[in-house]
Amino acid sequence: MNIKDAILAGNVRAAAKLMRRLDDRDESAIAILKELYAHTGRAYILGITGPPGAGKSTLVDCLISSFRKKGLRVGVVAIDPTSPFSGGAILGDRLRMMQHANDPYVFIRSLATRGAMGGLSRSTVDVISVLDAFGKDIIIIETVGVGQDEVEIARIAHTSVVMTVPGLGDDIQAIKAGIMEIADIYVINKADRDGANKTLMDIRLMLEMKEHDSDWQIPLYLVEASRGKGIDELVAGIEAHREYLFHHPNFRDILAEKARIQLAEVIKARLFEAAWQDLQQQGQLPRIIEQISQRTLDPYSVADALILRLKGQSSI
Amino acid sequence: MNIKDAILAGNVRAAAKLMRRLDDRDESAIAILKELYAHTGRAYILGITGPPGAGKSTLVDCLISSFRKKGLRVGVVAIDPTSPFSGGAILGDRLRMMQHANDPYVFIRSLATRGAMGGLSRSTVDVISVLDAFGKDIIIIETVGVGQDEVEIARIAHTSVVMTVPGLGDDIQAIKAGIMEIADIYVINKADRDGANKTLMDIRLMLEMKEHDSDWQIPLYLVEASRGKGIDELVAGIEAHREYLFHHPNFRDILAEKARIQLAEVIKARLFEAAWQDLQQQGQLPRIIEQISQRTLDPYSVADALILRLKGQSSI
Repeated sequence: MNIKDAILAGNVRAAAKLMRRLDDRDESAIAILKELYAHTGRAYILGITGPPGAGKSTLVDCLISSFRKKGLRVGVVAIDPTSPFSGGAILGDRLRMMQHANDPYVFIRSLATRGAMGGLSRSTVDVISVLDAFGKDIIIIETVGVGQDEVEIARIAHTSVVMTVPGLGDDIQAIKAGIMEIADIYVINKADRDGANKTLMDIRLMLEMKEHDSDWQIPLYLVEASRGKGIDELVAGIEAHREYLFHHPNFRDILAEKARIQLAEVIKARLFEAAWQDLQQQGQLPRIIEQISQRTLDPYSVADALILRLKGQSSI
Repeated sequence: MNIKDAILAGNVRAAAKLMRRLDDRDESAIAILKELYAHTGRAYILGITGPPGAGKSTLVDCLISSFRKKGLRVGVVAIDPTSPFSGGAILGDRLRMMQHANDPYVFIRSLATRGAMGGLSRSTVDVISVLDAFGKDIIIIETVGVGQDEVEIARIAHTSVVMTVPGLGDDIQAIKAGIMEIADIYVINKADRDGANKTLMDIRLMLEMKEHDSDWQIPLYLVEASRGKGIDELVAGIEAHREYLFHHPNFRDILAEKARIQLAEVIKARLFEAAWQDLQQQGQLPRIIEQISQRTLDPYSVADALILRLKGQSSI
């Protein structure tokens, strides 16, 4: 059985293999992804976004358990704000999800935000496509939600849960406001902490001030993920949003908007990779970089020359 | 006087005008940027990176005062993890820098990490180039340091200061480890807080464990930015790193690496913008997005078609 059919049949090792090949920028893996794409679009994508320290992994852990009890197959894409250098930190964080390690219907994939130039967003889009074709009913994307790439990724989700915790500093409040735009559901974790009430009131106030461009009222849940408290209510809220979305009169437009973001992310990453590789293969890169460094050439002119090549005609 | 000459002559309004035009993706602004590029490369670029709540703005405020006392002209690019939606948050944060608002030799520019698709990195590169040509002796880039774009941007700096504060959660520690790779100097702010000693020891341990690929010993400073404590020592440390760098036997290679990142960021953003605009102008985008949404077309094939156009021959 080839790798595509193996993935469609739900073979875990085939899915893991394809993801590794995608990491290696293997062109044959992209070819498989293209074939798999027709089999995607079935999974429900759930974004979990919150600042560092909000307890995202613990909450995701609770959600996995909850969805598994309903018999759903779960995929997780955890975007770690870490580098290969800090492998230990990733591992420590992920260890909490290890209780699901032996569950064949749970697939967890960590993506580092560092690494090769470009590609976080594309990698995320790729992994979502693989998990979707692989038969996952629900795919959870866990992100810190700062940085433009991450916010774009969150927009791919059908339902975006934005988390916070009581007692974070002013900067955190700024982030909270910044990602509020993407929130379909709001969660305050560590609700037993001092200041939970103040945070609750702050968020309620912000939600009231927010202009409503839809008839979805953003609900606000207090949870204690480490003790599993409030999770059932949150899951019910997620399901309610799903129902709302699927029966939305503009559901088709909503999906098109997600496809637009997905397309943009793929184009951004693939075009850059191709252009850069091209410059490298033609052996021009060292000279160009030296000239830029010496200010006898500017990066904008190099980009323009590459764009000129794009202006040729071809149909898609 | 045209805008280019006005900027080279240090005209604040001309610089602000060009930045606004760059925000609007005005092609004539890019043309000016190309001309200005030959006049860049003089500014010293200082990155200040740290998690939300670390007190970056307060520290930057202290640094501006310190550099101004030395007669240096200062530019600041503050990358806010916020959206246009949370204008209040940006403003509140920036208010602390207002004491410099009437100083004609301080130019502060906030960039939101949200906004149009793509472009944070390019915008940052653009603003740095304008400030550099504009005659700033030192340009401070303030970032949260999570997200790939941000880490790439930090690599453009000549000296990268990584900040933390005592008593942040585990996730923050992960970030700290992740951005440690880019640190030339380490700062613990709010050193009067409980747990400062533990944080100090943790970071010392990490620094000792880190493989040394250079003969620069990363110093660690305890500061209380809100009271101006420890700033002189930090500034001396920044100057020591500058000296180290400028007398480094591989100084030329170090600058070339920064030029490489700059080039990559510009190509990434400009190529995507051009390709996307092209698809829009040809009126193909709605059909393509609809087909992707319906899974009768995949985004990888669209990217491939665009890449094929790139494969034509042209010289730079």
